[in-house]
Amino acid sequence: MRFLPLLDKFIVGFRDRHRIPRLVLLLGISGGGLVSYSEVKSDPSVTDSSIPRTQGKKRLVVLGTGWAATSFLKDLDSSLYDVQVVSPRNYFAFTPLLPSVTCGTVEARSIVEPIRKLIKRKNDEIHYWEAECIKIDAANKQVHCLSKHDKSMEGKEEFLLDYDFLVIAVGAQSNTFNTPGVLEHCHFLKEVEDAQRIRRSVLDCFEKANLPNLSEEERKVILHFVVVGGGPTGVEFAAELHDFVCEDLVRLYPAVQNLVKITLVQSGDHILNMFDERISTFAEQKFQRDGIDVKMGYRVVEVTDKSINMKRKDTNESSSNPYGMIVWSTGIGTRPVINDFMDQIGQHDRRALATNEWLNVRGCDNVFAIGDCATIEQRKIMEDIFNIFKVADKDNSGTLTVQEFQDVIGELCERYPQLELYMKKKHMRNVADLLLGNKESNQTESKALNIEEFKLALAEVDSQMKSLPATAQVAAQQGAYLAKCFNHMHDSETKPEGPRRITEPGRHRFHPFRYKHFGQFAPLGGEQAAAELPGDWVSIGQSSQWLWYSVYASKQVSWRTRVLVLFDWTKRFVFGRDSSQI
Amino acid sequence: MRFLPLLDKFIVGFRDRHRIPRLVLLLGISGGGLVSYSEVKSDPSVTDSSIPRTQGKKRLVVLGTGWAATSFLKDLDSSLYDVQVVSPRNYFAFTPLLPSVTCGTVEARSIVEPIRKLIKRKNDEIHYWEAECIKIDAANKQVHCLSKHDKSMEGKEEFLLDYDFLVIAVGAQSNTFNTPGVLEHCHFLKEVEDAQRIRRSVLDCFEKANLPNLSEEERKVILHFVVVGGGPTGVEFAAELHDFVCEDLVRLYPAVQNLVKITLVQSGDHILNMFDERISTFAEQKFQRDGIDVKMGYRVVEVTDKSINMKRKDTNESSSNPYGMIVWSTGIGTRPVINDFMDQIGQHDRRALATNEWLNVRGCDNVFAIGDCATIEQRKIMEDIFNIFKVADKDNSGTLTVQEFQDVIGELCERYPQLELYMKKKHMRNVADLLLGNKESNQTESKALNIEEFKLALAEVDSQMKSLPATAQVAAQQGAYLAKCFNHMHDSETKPEGPRRITEPGRHRFHPFRYKHFGQFAPLGGEQAAAELPGDWVSIGQSSQWLWYSVYASKQVSWRTRVLVLFDWTKRFVFGRDSSQI
Repeated sequence: MRFLPLLDKFIVGFRDRHRIPRLVLLLGISGGGLVSYSEVKSDPSVTDSSIPRTQGKKRLVVLGTGWAATSFLKDLDSSLYDVQVVSPRNYFAFTPLLPSVTCGTVEARSIVEPIRKLIKRKNDEIHYWEAECIKIDAANKQVHCLSKHDKSMEGKEEFLLDYDFLVIAVGAQSNTFNTPGVLEHCHFLKEVEDAQRIRRSVLDCFEKANLPNLSEEERKVILHFVVVGGGPTGVEFAAELHDFVCEDLVRLYPAVQNLVKITLVQSGDHILNMFDERISTFAEQKFQRDGIDVKMGYRVVEVTDKSINMKRKDTNESSSNPYGMIVWSTGIGTRPVINDFMDQIGQHDRRALATNEWLNVRGCDNVFAIGDCATIEQRKIMEDIFNIFKVADKDNSGTLTVQEFQDVIGELCERYPQLELYMKKKHMRNVADLLLGNKESNQTESKALNIEEFKLALAEVDSQMKSLPATAQVAAQQGAYLAKCFNHMHDSETKPEGPRRITEPGRHRFHPFRYKHFGQFAPLGGEQAAAELPGDWVSIGQSSQWLWYSVYASKQVSWRTRVLVLFDWTKRFVFGRDSSQI
Repeated sequence: MRFLPLLDKFIVGFRDRHRIPRLVLLLGISGGGLVSYSEVKSDPSVTDSSIPRTQGKKRLVVLGTGWAATSFLKDLDSSLYDVQVVSPRNYFAFTPLLPSVTCGTVEARSIVEPIRKLIKRKNDEIHYWEAECIKIDAANKQVHCLSKHDKSMEGKEEFLLDYDFLVIAVGAQSNTFNTPGVLEHCHFLKEVEDAQRIRRSVLDCFEKANLPNLSEEERKVILHFVVVGGGPTGVEFAAELHDFVCEDLVRLYPAVQNLVKITLVQSGDHILNMFDERISTFAEQKFQRDGIDVKMGYRVVEVTDKSINMKRKDTNESSSNPYGMIVWSTGIGTRPVINDFMDQIGQHDRRALATNEWLNVRGCDNVFAIGDCATIEQRKIMEDIFNIFKVADKDNSGTLTVQEFQDVIGELCERYPQLELYMKKKHMRNVADLLLGNKESNQTESKALNIEEFKLALAEVDSQMKSLPATAQVAAQQGAYLAKCFNHMHDSETKPEGPRRITEPGRHRFHPFRYKHFGQFAPLGGEQAAAELPGDWVSIGQSSQWLWYSVYASKQVSWRTRVLVLFDWTKRFVFGRDSSQI
């Protein structure tokens, strides 16, 4: 809904925009039409030298170089905008392979691609700044950026970028749920550096446990690896670690091979509980066979430098477990810059930035958010129920026939996807089933509903609203979708392609974003993987592992990383994993 | 000379040795004949659990996992000793490829091999402790070790190892010549981590120079790379960096491609001055063509956070040069543990541990030193001149004939290699030339020399004594040589194979160590390398680069690293070097 004002403003040139008062506009046109802003003392600002701008093109600032941002940049027609990318990470990382990096199955460098290489394919139309966005100033349409190169830059490490459109794709950070000691003593598994640190730490534990003057008890503690979180990342890491220990390390550290223990702590009743039950059960059984101690229904209450303290949820029984290393992988939380931005735009205390179905941030016409930092707030059908009735009641009779509703059901399902889900869930074959109930559906077209009957029929539809998981797949699809919208923004003005508007006349300019689930994998170690594919198809075992290899190889962002990852896998098969502390 | 007492003691079992008074010997024999020593409070000690010992075998402790130690361990028959290896680095690194790692031509992991894998081939007869030797206690035959895992070890991070034989191969550290600011602001290039840091730092400079609000002057400073030291490492790094910039980075950072400057600072009058002059000249000319600023005859006096201050040696003119990054590669210095050990054994203020020609540390019968931490102190011929005369004068006539001297010249040349070098240098064809001078050599056997004439003839021989360069080649040969000595220690007692003793009766047990120079390479970038091979053969150009590739591939310590290095080179040819900051 908020897309319209944005599009209306599209034609208005940026010269008409108000400049913020504390910045003095110098507008020194030099060389190729460069625009420069100088600062009022101590305030960071952009100078002319580095951002050549084409007059008339809208400034599009993209924050992030993860899945969402990279997918967006890849599909964007960058000749239409002045594109600038800001991220503290000058590369894209293929995060689903991060657990493999923790144990050296795949090398860190094999899963990253420099963002400059990716944008290079766009003929230098995109600028990249290695900096972190520390503040989004929606009122002044600016982002404040801070380079990590803070030494000897004399204040120049901070700079401002003006935007006409902003795409926020900064991702999320690990969530500690404010558990004391987690930040200080646990490893996370979000970034490539995290994976490298974990790898070094695992080997450190083995070297440490091998030192001469320790008791067996002390060695056991050092070799107690705890994974908190039974989601795909935690489970995959536990599985990788188990393989690394059993296939490689026991040969090199024979003295301690029987002292290793891996514990997986899960607060829920099952691990991998976002997967099909068959997969959860298989994973639990496999881990049991492997000797991985899966503690389900436990909540971590504190982590100290020596032990991790847990509470059993059902009995409230406490336990203190000495450990050698902990990997914390319990879900994601909001980054500070997003929290601050949400406060500015009145989205207090949310888990993520709320956008509409067109990925437009609620309350900010020209700001879009994709990936883990955002969540789509689905429009409730009951909010619009009167308007829907009005739109469907073509003859303005005050009652709605099945036929009348049939005419708009397609567009309604696009606008309110929960409607389709609801009908599917209730096994309704057609509109008559929905409006009249399964039993009365033979009355068909003769029956007409008034508004109250209509409300009653649709009363429970909104219960089917689902938020999307925070996965690479969702982020990538959102990026690609948004790029398409940006590419067709001009055309869509005259030829809107979206569904009919319900509360206003006319049509939406674009189809709303719809997520297509292509399935998900859970590698379980020992060349076994579980795959959940669309259509309730579940596959478990070695064949799934090979499917996993082929899908992950094909999904690589460049031929370079594809070759490297394939080589790494081959290398692992031939030589095993490397155990040097690099 | 000092080898004899060591060998004499060899038969005496370790039970006869005096234990140091402040340690209480518990000698708790458990399980498979384990010996345990408990400590007198607060003193670190070895416990029984981790060091299974075979009664009667001598304890051999090896410090280090570099070229010398690895080569020693590789060739050692470890079934003859109880071998323990101590090093803070649990891998061997193929250091000649370090400059390639700085720019991503080769990956760090491709040039390292876990030491546990190397010793694994010995059927677990070798123990490895990941710790640093912090003190060598020669009087008590102990080494004090400190694990880097200092956290939560409750004092157990420090431990003692007893030895019967000690092989010191800890290498050296970078030498700053006490130049102020070097430690704080410069990169070194000794370890794999150094190379990785340099790589990140180079890319940091490029990202930093690309930030929006900088002047061209500021960008130039950030992209000013300074290499101090015109030896093989410094030159190769400068060449690699130049290639990295020209072949890869300019494509990704087109905005700053003309601002990059590389300066190579050399205190001597030529770079690569340990090489043939033709190579030095070629390198200087190539660097000039490449735009690398070679500053010869400059001494660095201070490094601050912003600039590197130099003095021109001939004019004493000072200059201050702002920089973005400095790599300091001017030679090696002594590690603190070696300094401390030298003080203990009366070798004060030396550059490295002095050993005799059998690599036995002077003043310590059962301690050996190999690699960069040691230097062989050649025996002077003038010290032994009377004994030599006596040995050669078979008929005790008081005069020496050419024939008499001819009979011992072979053994003398082995014992005093400077003799052979001297004769070669002076173009002497035979012993007569040496004893009688070139002109009188036709008098041949009739002439006999008295002791004074003999002294005069050999007076300048010792001027040809040369210390060996601190290279991987020397270290590896020393390791292999020493391993052979250890392997044959028992046999050699009855069948000594060395040259005749000069000051005592009998023969030396082993041939003294002799270094064989197989040549050296200097890669100069742009697929050009210089090679200096034995026999004054110099080769410069692309063919040498290919020779370099084949030699370095063949010299890899394992098939794994060989494959990885070859793959890295191929990868670089196909995809270029990676520029992501991992």
